[in-house]
Amino acid sequence: MPSPVTPPRGMRDFLPSDKRRRDLVLDTIRSTYRSFGFDEIETPVVEDSERLHAGLGGDNEKLAFAVLRRALSTDDLRTAATPLDLADLGLRFDLTVPLARFYATHRAELPPVFRAVQIAPVWRAEKPQKGRYRQFVQCDIDIIGEPSAMAEIELLSATSAVLARLGLIGTTIRINDRRILLALLAHWNVPLDRFDTALVIIDKLDKIGVGGVVTELAGIDVPTAGLEAQLEELAASTWESLSGGAEWLDEAAFADLLALRAALPDAALEFDPTLVRGMGYYTGTIFEVAHPDFGYSLGGGGRYDGMIGRFLGADVPAAGFSLGFERLVDLVELPGDTGGEGVVLLYDASLDPAALVRLQHEVAALHAAEGVEPRVRLDRKARNLKNQLSGLAALGYGRFAVVQSADQTAETLEFRGLA
Amino acid sequence: MPSPVTPPRGMRDFLPSDKRRRDLVLDTIRSTYRSFGFDEIETPVVEDSERLHAGLGGDNEKLAFAVLRRALSTDDLRTAATPLDLADLGLRFDLTVPLARFYATHRAELPPVFRAVQIAPVWRAEKPQKGRYRQFVQCDIDIIGEPSAMAEIELLSATSAVLARLGLIGTTIRINDRRILLALLAHWNVPLDRFDTALVIIDKLDKIGVGGVVTELAGIDVPTAGLEAQLEELAASTWESLSGGAEWLDEAAFADLLALRAALPDAALEFDPTLVRGMGYYTGTIFEVAHPDFGYSLGGGGRYDGMIGRFLGADVPAAGFSLGFERLVDLVELPGDTGGEGVVLLYDASLDPAALVRLQHEVAALHAAEGVEPRVRLDRKARNLKNQLSGLAALGYGRFAVVQSADQTAETLEFRGLA
Repeated sequence: MPSPVTPPRGMRDFLPSDKRRRDLVLDTIRSTYRSFGFDEIETPVVEDSERLHAGLGGDNEKLAFAVLRRALSTDDLRTAATPLDLADLGLRFDLTVPLARFYATHRAELPPVFRAVQIAPVWRAEKPQKGRYRQFVQCDIDIIGEPSAMAEIELLSATSAVLARLGLIGTTIRINDRRILLALLAHWNVPLDRFDTALVIIDKLDKIGVGGVVTELAGIDVPTAGLEAQLEELAASTWESLSGGAEWLDEAAFADLLALRAALPDAALEFDPTLVRGMGYYTGTIFEVAHPDFGYSLGGGGRYDGMIGRFLGADVPAAGFSLGFERLVDLVELPGDTGGEGVVLLYDASLDPAALVRLQHEVAALHAAEGVEPRVRLDRKARNLKNQLSGLAALGYGRFAVVQSADQTAETLEFRGLA
Repeated sequence: MPSPVTPPRGMRDFLPSDKRRRDLVLDTIRSTYRSFGFDEIETPVVEDSERLHAGLGGDNEKLAFAVLRRALSTDDLRTAATPLDLADLGLRFDLTVPLARFYATHRAELPPVFRAVQIAPVWRAEKPQKGRYRQFVQCDIDIIGEPSAMAEIELLSATSAVLARLGLIGTTIRINDRRILLALLAHWNVPLDRFDTALVIIDKLDKIGVGGVVTELAGIDVPTAGLEAQLEELAASTWESLSGGAEWLDEAAFADLLALRAALPDAALEFDPTLVRGMGYYTGTIFEVAHPDFGYSLGGGGRYDGMIGRFLGADVPAAGFSLGFERLVDLVELPGDTGGEGVVLLYDASLDPAALVRLQHEVAALHAAEGVEPRVRLDRKARNLKNQLSGLAALGYGRFAVVQSADQTAETLEFRGLA
């Protein structure tokens, strides 16, 4: 038996019904973001190696697929200090590094406040596992050049609309501010040089619980007297419980969050002072989309003022929101495929091809005249008609007719349902 | 001055107006092929190295970007015989090799006759030059499993419709059959082992003229007595001039072409017995899209029965048509961007964000109620208002209003044209 022919490890093909479903969900996301004034851009799938590995991507940099230089000699292989010396390009591992590069390249052509949408695949050489792929689609929106909370308000407003349009009932957006976290760490007397480690530990609260966090904080010399009670109280904090203030609360940041909330009365914002978000580059608000049925987030983002300007050598305010498309697409229930109107003309080999082509055009024209998106497929009648018809139904066709003679017209075809 | 920050060599970014234009053209191509019963699929951008370099891609295999294996040791670098030994994946250089791999992977799930559309980027490490890029989009349709001329008829019918929908007036489809070329070479007493070389030479007729072709054929020992006159006659051949027959003509293949033509009375098919098409894998009909204003083809294809089944170890009939999107997109004149209805709400920093969010929703809801795709952008009033307005017009926005107070409603906003 020959070895099975498969896509590359950890990557997927999309059959027609999958592809269609994905594209319908992507179209909804794209058109909703567009309706809020975001403009779609596209960058190449690869970036120059030195930019991918400039320290903007955190741990993801290590997961980048590297592209070999062309015209390498055997000598080049012998003298290279590391494999990366042989690469000049790499597949992007996120859409933020390319955005920073894009912004540096095109700033002069962009409006002062630039609202970008990127809907595109990224690649990470992670160990493949259920639900985790080496090529996957991200949907990012970013507002560059707006220092005020209007950026966060627009991001949250547009993303709430996307989640609503996708019918994802029950999703909430957890929100916090890095300044609140930093004040909290200071209040706990965490040594400054251990802030990053402490944040990583707090980020695990969902997984290891209050007890686990206290143990790990103790391991990096954080005084733990009363910490367990404070963590419990923290995890249970809400807008309401904190509106009177709290000893550890950064009041200015909390006031900003309250203002966000006031501007977005319809968004399901949930204050969560334990929310950390992994990436080190966030500087202000951070947010994460949660769904009660799932232990993982569907997306997230925040303000990252230091980063977009890195390739430009300038400080540029920026905030962004990224939706994890692969997680979303499985949750969305689509209304009936709009291709359900599609029809199939079955024929056998004796029929004149010219008549078949004519009939196909006639039926399509009839549909178009009725305002229906035409979709008319010619298909030779298979030996196993039942199989053929169920396959066509699975592809979203709704009706079929058997062409009996070359003299038929669109009106004399007898259509039957496929389902 | 820092070095300029650019996309990788030979690759391009797409700014919002470019991206929009490209997507509108792609949507037309996609929906037209779909209306003819083709189903869209997607494969990963990389394929396993051994498949990319299995000999199906002709010269393009040499242009593949190779992806470094992960976790290579210095020892691996020292002992590798060639750079390719260090790669396990490569970016696809066309959509045909991935289709053959896809078909081998999923045959059991596909209908007996599979009509595939692929609209996707490919990569080739060519020397960048005007109009030639290292990442570019191809639009391929293929019919797999149909041995009869119905496959070619459907391909030509659907592609003619695409060209018409794109408004590419004056395009013709040149058509020939490899069997006609082979009979012609036999008639000229070309030695069998020089058929491939002779085809490459004839393929250059457009560039080097009849004289050049005769000289080069003489160089591979083809008898050239009377060849110049025959080539002149050949280049001038039409359906009509050949319908009486000709000494060198493969009558069976020509009859098949006439049948294609009869089935497609509306397609601008032009018989061209000098048409070769570069790829060695074609086995029957070949076609190429020509436009009177351009010296290059806009796309092409043909029957390639031996190839799709290669990874499957089986013979599978197949025919395909590929459109070169990068060439098409520049020729297409689009009707006014449907985003022309978009509006901008200009505000200054003193305004309550909550009021702005409310107004944005109200205006969008008004548009939706009028059946217009909503597109409402909030934008802070810039110091240089004129610049800002012309930038917004370039992004396809049609009107703007200045928000005067938090009490306004969608009805009290005064809209003015942006153009």
